[in-house]
Amino acid sequence: MPSLDICFSPELLPLYALRGKVAVVVDILRATSSIVTALAAGVSHIVPFSELDDCRAMAAQGYLTAAERDGRQAEGFDLGNSPFGYLDGVLPVQGRGVAITTTNGTRALHLSLAADAVVVGAFLNLEAVARFVRAQGKDVVVVCAGWKGMFNLEDTLFGGALAERLAADFDTVGSDATLAAHHLWQQAQADLASYLLQSAHVRRLNGLEANKDFEYCIQLDTHDILPIWQEKRLVAHA
Amino acid sequence: MPSLDICFSPELLPLYALRGKVAVVVDILRATSSIVTALAAGVSHIVPFSELDDCRAMAAQGYLTAAERDGRQAEGFDLGNSPFGYLDGVLPVQGRGVAITTTNGTRALHLSLAADAVVVGAFLNLEAVARFVRAQGKDVVVVCAGWKGMFNLEDTLFGGALAERLAADFDTVGSDATLAAHHLWQQAQADLASYLLQSAHVRRLNGLEANKDFEYCIQLDTHDILPIWQEKRLVAHA
Repeated sequence: MPSLDICFSPELLPLYALRGKVAVVVDILRATSSIVTALAAGVSHIVPFSELDDCRAMAAQGYLTAAERDGRQAEGFDLGNSPFGYLDGVLPVQGRGVAITTTNGTRALHLSLAADAVVVGAFLNLEAVARFVRAQGKDVVVVCAGWKGMFNLEDTLFGGALAERLAADFDTVGSDATLAAHHLWQQAQADLASYLLQSAHVRRLNGLEANKDFEYCIQLDTHDILPIWQEKRLVAHA
Repeated sequence: MPSLDICFSPELLPLYALRGKVAVVVDILRATSSIVTALAAGVSHIVPFSELDDCRAMAAQGYLTAAERDGRQAEGFDLGNSPFGYLDGVLPVQGRGVAITTTNGTRALHLSLAADAVVVGAFLNLEAVARFVRAQGKDVVVVCAGWKGMFNLEDTLFGGALAERLAADFDTVGSDATLAAHHLWQQAQADLASYLLQSAHVRRLNGLEANKDFEYCIQLDTHDILPIWQEKRLVAHA
C-alpha cells in the first residue's frame, strides 16, 4: 500500500526523498487555489517564477503577469494572488498564459520538481487530486507552502482532508505528520471557516485583501481540474 | 503578554530568533525524560555531546557515559537513553557527572543555545517548566527534537500541554504551530498512551527497548525539577 506523507514546510523538504513519488503542492491562501481557478477559467498554462523581475519580463512575450509579496499584489503586475482576478471579467484570461510569483507557493513548487509527478492541490480540487494519486498508486508527499518557512494551519488541514479521502487506499498512519494533520482535519471539517479563523496568520492574510478570497478558497470540490507540471509549466491534466 | 511558539523540528530553528527568549528543549522519547530523571536521581550535572567518540572519552574524566543511536544503546557506554538507567540501582549515579549523546535530543539542545535561557522539558516536569517560564515572563519557544528532523507527535503534544498550562499568561494563539499542538493535546490528554500508540514512530521506538520506558515517559508532573543550561552543562535549577 503506498504511503501518504505531509511535509509541513519547504525547509523540511530535503528530508523527503521525492524521486519516485507524487508531490502535491499546496498553498491554500492563495496561490494554489488561484492556479486551480485560473486553469478552470480558461488560462492555457502557468509559468511560476521565483523573482519579481523575471516574472514581470514575461509581459513582453504576451503573458499576463501575477505577483504577490507578503500577501499584497506587487506593483507593475496585471494580477495579484486573488482567485477573483481570473473570475471578475476585468481581464480577459481565456487562452492566455500567466506568469506568476508568490511569497511561498512558487518556492514550494520549484523545490518539489524532483518528484515523478508534481500536481497542485487546493480544497477546490481536492477530489481531483485524490483521484489522480489513487490512479498513480505511488507514494505521495503533500508539500505545504507554509508561511515563510513556518508551519501553517490551512495547508496542513488540506493534507488532513486528503488523508481522509485516501485512508482506504494509502498508508495514512505511518507518518506522525499525516496522523496529526488527519486529526486536525477531523476537528476542523464541521466548520472549517471558524476553525481557520482561530489562526492569527489566517486573519492577517484576510485583512490584506478582500476576505471574500478566504470564503472562496475553503470550498471543497468546486473544480474538477488538476494542474500538473509538464514541460516547465502548469497545465490542466487531460 | 509574552508568546509561546513551537518549533516542530531542529531543521526549522533558523526561522526562530531565539535571542531574548526562553528555549524549552523537548525529546520525550527519551532524551529529555531521561535527563530530568537523572538529575532527580542525584546526578550532579550532564554534558551533552554530538559525537560518540567525544562522549565516550569523558569516561577518563570520571564521567558516566550514555549514548543512543537510532533508538538503541551504543556499544562501549555505561548507559543508553532509558530513564531506568538512573533508577534501577545497577549503577551508582549519585553525585556523578554524565556525558550523553542521543540521535535527536543533543542536537536540538546545541542548536538552542542562542536563547537567553535553555531548559529541558518533559511530561515528567511539565509544571516545573510552566512555573519557570511564567516567572521569566519572556517569549518562549518549545524546540521539538523530532526524529531525524521530522515532525513527531510526542514532542508536539508536550508543546500542546505546555500551551494549555500557559494559556492564561501567554499568547498561545499567535502561532499556527502552537494552535495545532494545543488542539492535538486537547484530543490526546484523556488517554495519552492510546493516542500516542497510533503513531508508527512511537511503536517502533517502543519495540527497540523495554516499552516500560514509554509508560514512564508519558507521566505528568512526577518530578519537580528543571534542568537548565549553565556553564556548558545541564544542572538542576535552584
